[in-house]
Amino acid sequence: MIDGKTIAQTVRARAAERAQKLAEMGIVPGLAVILVGEDPASQIYVRNKSRAAKKVGVQSQTIVMPVETTEAEVLAIVAQLNEDAAVDAILVQSPLPKHIDEEKVQEAILPSKDVDGFHPENIGRLFANRAGYYPIANTPRGVMTLLDATQQTLHGKQAIVIGRSILVGRPMFSLLERANMTVTLAHRHTPRAELRRLTQQADVVVVATGVPGLITGDDLKEGATVIDVGINRLADGSLVGDVDFASAEPKAAFITPVPGGVGPMTIATLMQTTVELAAVNHGVELD
Amino acid sequence: MIDGKTIAQTVRARAAERAQKLAEMGIVPGLAVILVGEDPASQIYVRNKSRAAKKVGVQSQTIVMPVETTEAEVLAIVAQLNEDAAVDAILVQSPLPKHIDEEKVQEAILPSKDVDGFHPENIGRLFANRAGYYPIANTPRGVMTLLDATQQTLHGKQAIVIGRSILVGRPMFSLLERANMTVTLAHRHTPRAELRRLTQQADVVVVATGVPGLITGDDLKEGATVIDVGINRLADGSLVGDVDFASAEPKAAFITPVPGGVGPMTIATLMQTTVELAAVNHGVELD
Repeated sequence: MIDGKTIAQTVRARAAERAQKLAEMGIVPGLAVILVGEDPASQIYVRNKSRAAKKVGVQSQTIVMPVETTEAEVLAIVAQLNEDAAVDAILVQSPLPKHIDEEKVQEAILPSKDVDGFHPENIGRLFANRAGYYPIANTPRGVMTLLDATQQTLHGKQAIVIGRSILVGRPMFSLLERANMTVTLAHRHTPRAELRRLTQQADVVVVATGVPGLITGDDLKEGATVIDVGINRLADGSLVGDVDFASAEPKAAFITPVPGGVGPMTIATLMQTTVELAAVNHGVELD
Repeated sequence: MIDGKTIAQTVRARAAERAQKLAEMGIVPGLAVILVGEDPASQIYVRNKSRAAKKVGVQSQTIVMPVETTEAEVLAIVAQLNEDAAVDAILVQSPLPKHIDEEKVQEAILPSKDVDGFHPENIGRLFANRAGYYPIANTPRGVMTLLDATQQTLHGKQAIVIGRSILVGRPMFSLLERANMTVTLAHRHTPRAELRRLTQQADVVVVATGVPGLITGDDLKEGATVIDVGINRLADGSLVGDVDFASAEPKAAFITPVPGGVGPMTIATLMQTTVELAAVNHGVELD
């Protein structure tokens, strides 16, 4: 079992240490979060991010805007934060109200402050495997940290990523491919029988679909590593992933539970990226 | 057999027709090619591009610079072409001399004039499957035209791309995935036995490795579509692809020959993209 909680703790501690080093040089990493509307889940996420920031030593500010805010108003705030030297990282909480073009807002953020790694320029750098530092989407980056913790060789092994969102599936594909794995990207149009044939060959299976229990033990090769990015709330209030844990666990060499697997990594990695952006934007090399 | 020559002819004729329409509106599509050094193969490519341009009605200029040109000098020319309203498309012939950072030069080209689709912003848009027009690498785009010509359904089918260059493999992956195929990206680190297992499952196999005869009939599923992007010159002077045509042809439903398959598509598609960029940059909608 991959203990995301403990590994996330280590990532946070490391970010705090690095933020401390920057603070000693007079640099306080700054994170700005834009929240439009009153979606209760978004409010919780934003609160958690700001709490994590405080603990790590990141100066965070949340800009709360009413649901009727126009796209132009959001773009004006982004432009202002782009100019603000105290802000190293800008995050727009998703989803935005429907009258605002989310991709347009993402593209308005300076690539060098794009802490979520959603700007096409950063996506392109990752997919093209460019050298140099650029932000990468935090959830898949956190998954790579989990895989590192298993200390297995990825090079030359086979992986499958199920789901192709820009938040998880696509950058996850890039990261695994960059680790020299042979990677398949599957999605809702992949026929079920073929999906099984592919997952049964894979050494690493990453599931990010939002379909509870989509992948079961029968879909897996003996000794596979199973990463479950799904978080689904059932009618009885319980949380489950996209993997049927009970049948998958006996077959897997490593598996992430839900909750307590990938979940805790996202905010921890967000802190890691924020501190890195602060260093890069101030021309400081962190060990 | 997929007849690349004839299909490329159609693409060129269509580009010429559209260039004609633009010319009637006073818009002459402009292509600028930068050639640094005297690589004989590059000289031939550049000459072929400029000939094709003339036939299609694209105004092309070739800027030839000596091999000792500095990176700064190349960047200065790019900056000048970025500003030049008569230039809709800028192409830097690869390879550049070793003392010039090719990626840096690619990134200096305005994304809206990046006819090769190598700018990270354009790569990112493609990989993220963004809406709107942006240039896409011409060889893989040409392959999609060949696949269209076979009139088969790609949606939900399985593909494998072998080779992951930014010129072919990576954008090819994106284009097939965007067509809702389940796509695997394989490469030099994919073990041979696993490669065969994967190609044997695939409905579409695209090979772009530079390894003569890497894929044989035994690697293929009956009825597969086989796209051979390789062009390798053997010791006896003959040209062969990455696919062993003799053994592959009987198994394939569709297959591209070498030469005469993918090869002719690259320049034809370059003309198509140049004309499109001229239209987009002048705010004209082409049918």
